[in-house]
Amino acid sequence: MQIKDIQSAHYRIALPVVLSDSTHGDIPFFELITVKLQDNDGLEGVGYTYTVGCGGAAIRALINRDLKPVLLDEDPRRIEHLWNKMWWRLHWVGRGGLAAFAISAVDIALWDLKGQTQSEPLWRLLGGHSQRVQAYAGGIDLQFSTEELCAQTRQNLQNGFRAIKMKVGREKLSDDIARVQAVRELIGPEIVLMVDANMRWTVDAAIRAARVLRDYGIYWLEEPTLPEDVKGHARIAREGGLPIAAGENLHSIYEFRAMIEQGELSFPEPDVANMGGISAWMKVAQLALGNHLPITSHGVHDLHVHLLGAVANASYLEVHGFGLERFIADPLQIENGEALAPDRPGHGVSFNWEALAEYEVRA
Amino acid sequence: MQIKDIQSAHYRIALPVVLSDSTHGDIPFFELITVKLQDNDGLEGVGYTYTVGCGGAAIRALINRDLKPVLLDEDPRRIEHLWNKMWWRLHWVGRGGLAAFAISAVDIALWDLKGQTQSEPLWRLLGGHSQRVQAYAGGIDLQFSTEELCAQTRQNLQNGFRAIKMKVGREKLSDDIARVQAVRELIGPEIVLMVDANMRWTVDAAIRAARVLRDYGIYWLEEPTLPEDVKGHARIAREGGLPIAAGENLHSIYEFRAMIEQGELSFPEPDVANMGGISAWMKVAQLALGNHLPITSHGVHDLHVHLLGAVANASYLEVHGFGLERFIADPLQIENGEALAPDRPGHGVSFNWEALAEYEVRA
Repeated sequence: MQIKDIQSAHYRIALPVVLSDSTHGDIPFFELITVKLQDNDGLEGVGYTYTVGCGGAAIRALINRDLKPVLLDEDPRRIEHLWNKMWWRLHWVGRGGLAAFAISAVDIALWDLKGQTQSEPLWRLLGGHSQRVQAYAGGIDLQFSTEELCAQTRQNLQNGFRAIKMKVGREKLSDDIARVQAVRELIGPEIVLMVDANMRWTVDAAIRAARVLRDYGIYWLEEPTLPEDVKGHARIAREGGLPIAAGENLHSIYEFRAMIEQGELSFPEPDVANMGGISAWMKVAQLALGNHLPITSHGVHDLHVHLLGAVANASYLEVHGFGLERFIADPLQIENGEALAPDRPGHGVSFNWEALAEYEVRA
Repeated sequence: MQIKDIQSAHYRIALPVVLSDSTHGDIPFFELITVKLQDNDGLEGVGYTYTVGCGGAAIRALINRDLKPVLLDEDPRRIEHLWNKMWWRLHWVGRGGLAAFAISAVDIALWDLKGQTQSEPLWRLLGGHSQRVQAYAGGIDLQFSTEELCAQTRQNLQNGFRAIKMKVGREKLSDDIARVQAVRELIGPEIVLMVDANMRWTVDAAIRAARVLRDYGIYWLEEPTLPEDVKGHARIAREGGLPIAAGENLHSIYEFRAMIEQGELSFPEPDVANMGGISAWMKVAQLALGNHLPITSHGVHDLHVHLLGAVANASYLEVHGFGLERFIADPLQIENGEALAPDRPGHGVSFNWEALAEYEVRA
């Protein structure tokens, strides 16, 4: 079996609603970078990654110019071999960062192809723990008024969610607390509530916030400070008294190792689209298991539902579509707060390439 | 004052001699990515970075598509402001890695422009400690026969060098030891000798090698293992008994902080072209000073001679030109083993753009 061709494309897509969080500010559009990979039997695997607005052209350049030449004619079933080949080919400009986005997109395409070849959905091919996965609604809502926030929350409850995440990190901590209090009063004591600070705080500010937030039954506090400050995370966990989640800005298994072992991370939250793909995500899940920790996910729920379904230590799947739903044939199914991994071979994500075409950015 | 225009170009240049080390294998060509930045007075700053063969098109794409739009019309004197703007603009795909190469090239251009504006050479503008800097000849010579290695060493001594670095990391440790022994016998006990393993070893293999190598008066052991294994570096330093140097694969001040504080690094070795430019390099130099450590450099000697000349804790400047000499007007001057920082404004590196043109890679 051989890889016969690889095509990568770059799309720039306006978001239906401008999103905002405490660090990235307003996000008016996102970028989608896709990979199609064909074998000599005519099967095709599809992979993708995304950005919050920058770097998409660079990711496509890495895939087309630097990765494609060393992947063509290789056996697509030898994913560990190809992953390491990509890692070392890009090592000088890599070790995480933007290179990890490019490797992720290719690795996801390789796993999708393997699923097609085996006629198996990824959740079963990768471990097959459970087709149903607990899910939460991830709100990107820092700029919402309390009324808008509560309306969104009511809608999420109506949609079957039993767990909800909201943003914190406003200028004044008292604003954050008032918003959290409003949401907790709305949802009652049983619904799971997470908060996400998007790296906004210093370590001391995060400890101060955590000590107040813990009165509201917070399930986890996400990204309280910079991912670089591993020791700072440990202090926040110990002195703040809330379980810490992080991972969307960690781009290698090594960064997760440090945050788990030294940062006292409770909820590792790898994003399969930016930390090395399915091959790397599964390693972090097992690293978490070996540290007696659950694993959760960031974004890209159509892929993560398979990965969390595969493993024994799954925590909640984050559900937020980032505007991608309208380009995907079968949207994620949520029933009673659980997401259902598809039975279609591979990841089962089928893009509407015609609808995407108008957003393509040419090289 | 305003930034009026920015142009970035990407060159792919065959090396005069194929280089090799224990990790990157044969390196038949390198990539040069340049930035020209003009202000509204008609002055121009020039910055650049390089790769060992991959990622150049992606770096140019980041500069042209993602950084240029947020830099135009800004005041080029506010470098700290612009550096942070670039860091956060690329943060989602950044935090080091390839994004750091793009930021480096722009930051170097901004400092060059500041030097032109002030009519000052960078070594004096940045601190002005000493125009003369101790230098060593950095050999990329793992594949050389012992005869070739000794011939190169004799040539380096004739060129005035009093310090020399050679590669280790061959298949058999006994080969490394025989080569180190041959060089030490050739140069006598007074010449400084460093060795560089380019991440080749496990921690245990590195400790074993260090315990033998220390009989040969080794000044530092460079990159004994993967940069991800911070604790492993500490073990190698303590149990191997040689001072450890590392840095060419660290891409942010935070990665240096971890390696200094937890990795027990003795010689931080930042490469200004891949860890955030002059603004970030100077911060690592001061971080080293605050930890009672010297600072050294990797590659790009035409820039580093200024940076090491600026600071109080300079160790040896690495001299190896990577084939760039033939495109630069005034080659680095070495006298009695010392390099001389130029008196020309800015970094004083003047490219021969006509000679480069034939190597340009179009987008």
